[in-house]
Amino acid sequence: MQLVIGNKNYSSWSMRPWVLMKHFDLPFDEVMLRFDFGPGSQFSSAAVRFSPTARVPVLVEDDGFTTWDSLAIVERLAELFPQHAIWPRDPRQRAQARSMAATMHSGFGDLRRLCPMNIDCDLQAVGRRLLASEPNLFADLTRLEALWEPALQAHGGPYLFGREFSAVDAYFAPVAMRVLRYGLPLGPEAASYVGALEANEAVRAWVAGAMDEKCFVVEDEPYRSGASEAPR
Amino acid sequence: MQLVIGNKNYSSWSMRPWVLMKHFDLPFDEVMLRFDFGPGSQFSSAAVRFSPTARVPVLVEDDGFTTWDSLAIVERLAELFPQHAIWPRDPRQRAQARSMAATMHSGFGDLRRLCPMNIDCDLQAVGRRLLASEPNLFADLTRLEALWEPALQAHGGPYLFGREFSAVDAYFAPVAMRVLRYGLPLGPEAASYVGALEANEAVRAWVAGAMDEKCFVVEDEPYRSGASEAPR
Repeated sequence: MQLVIGNKNYSSWSMRPWVLMKHFDLPFDEVMLRFDFGPGSQFSSAAVRFSPTARVPVLVEDDGFTTWDSLAIVERLAELFPQHAIWPRDPRQRAQARSMAATMHSGFGDLRRLCPMNIDCDLQAVGRRLLASEPNLFADLTRLEALWEPALQAHGGPYLFGREFSAVDAYFAPVAMRVLRYGLPLGPEAASYVGALEANEAVRAWVAGAMDEKCFVVEDEPYRSGASEAPR
Repeated sequence: MQLVIGNKNYSSWSMRPWVLMKHFDLPFDEVMLRFDFGPGSQFSSAAVRFSPTARVPVLVEDDGFTTWDSLAIVERLAELFPQHAIWPRDPRQRAQARSMAATMHSGFGDLRRLCPMNIDCDLQAVGRRLLASEPNLFADLTRLEALWEPALQAHGGPYLFGREFSAVDAYFAPVAMRVLRYGLPLGPEAASYVGALEANEAVRAWVAGAMDEKCFVVEDEPYRSGASEAPR
């Protein structure tokens, strides 16, 4: 099985199934397509070989069968590996976990737009500036707390549905990266959950890969100065 | 079981699970929260009683248990009613159907932004203007064809996975409404699929409800003139 991903430093959508597969020790080879942009993009011409959307991530099974989009990949993995609690085992917890993951999948647009994931960059100063000027960013953080806190309280943490890390936690791992790098403020329970995600071994493995990458893409670097290419 | 929805004329996300439940004749009561906007929104204060996101749709089970977000609702229904092929029965077809639904769930931003669903409005002239001025709209239509055509060819239509209407078709029903109302051009296979969705009885029932509504909301009417409230 292969998982086709983008740059670990930037690709929040790739991070989700990669971290999930790593956490459950599922057998897979990683295929990285490095992001580039514009006409003649090598990324696009490579990615379209794997999915009609020309996006990552894509799960490629051994005979070439592909599932694309992070959420569909999670569901495919849950069906292929029923021995693992990829979603919580309890049907209602599973429904809630899916509600939260789906909310992340289509929402939090301001957080995603204003604070693109950039693991290898200290963006605390950018975060302070954004917090002072972007009320929508605060609103997204409040929404995150409203989403996380009831689950953390009901199940006792450290993860959203208790002691076991599942797909919904993988879904929020890139959010944890944004919170940490941009220094975004959260209440104590939500902050503690971000800490639990940061400490997760699969997350740490992804972060180590991102830090080793040192491949900076100008279109993904709206804020960095001193990168190998000039910031926008 | 209750399904909490927004205005049938506008709420593309509500349409998806409603049409699915109607198609499979699942027992449910509809609870409509009419859209309004701004501070003091009655919609928001009502919706937050059902979901932490204050959005529709929400599935409310008889004891009050809620699942929110259209995609999580589909998965919950598939678990509650395994006697129905809410997703295709074949595991690989199911993975492909989920890939396509998830692509719709988080994508086609330009189509959604430029052509908001407005069932009770002839927007052909608007569509012609948009097609002349918005290359991204054409790009989204091309992406739709690339997504639909291989499935229609592989399974022979009229629906994406053959003769049986499933959740992925419910996912594209609001897209069919946009294509029809804005007069958006599609190749013959894709256009024929839009026709099949339009002819589906559950879709027709939703459309009839939308046409009867006659409750126009200025924030959802960027294009209409002569609505009961002035267009933006």
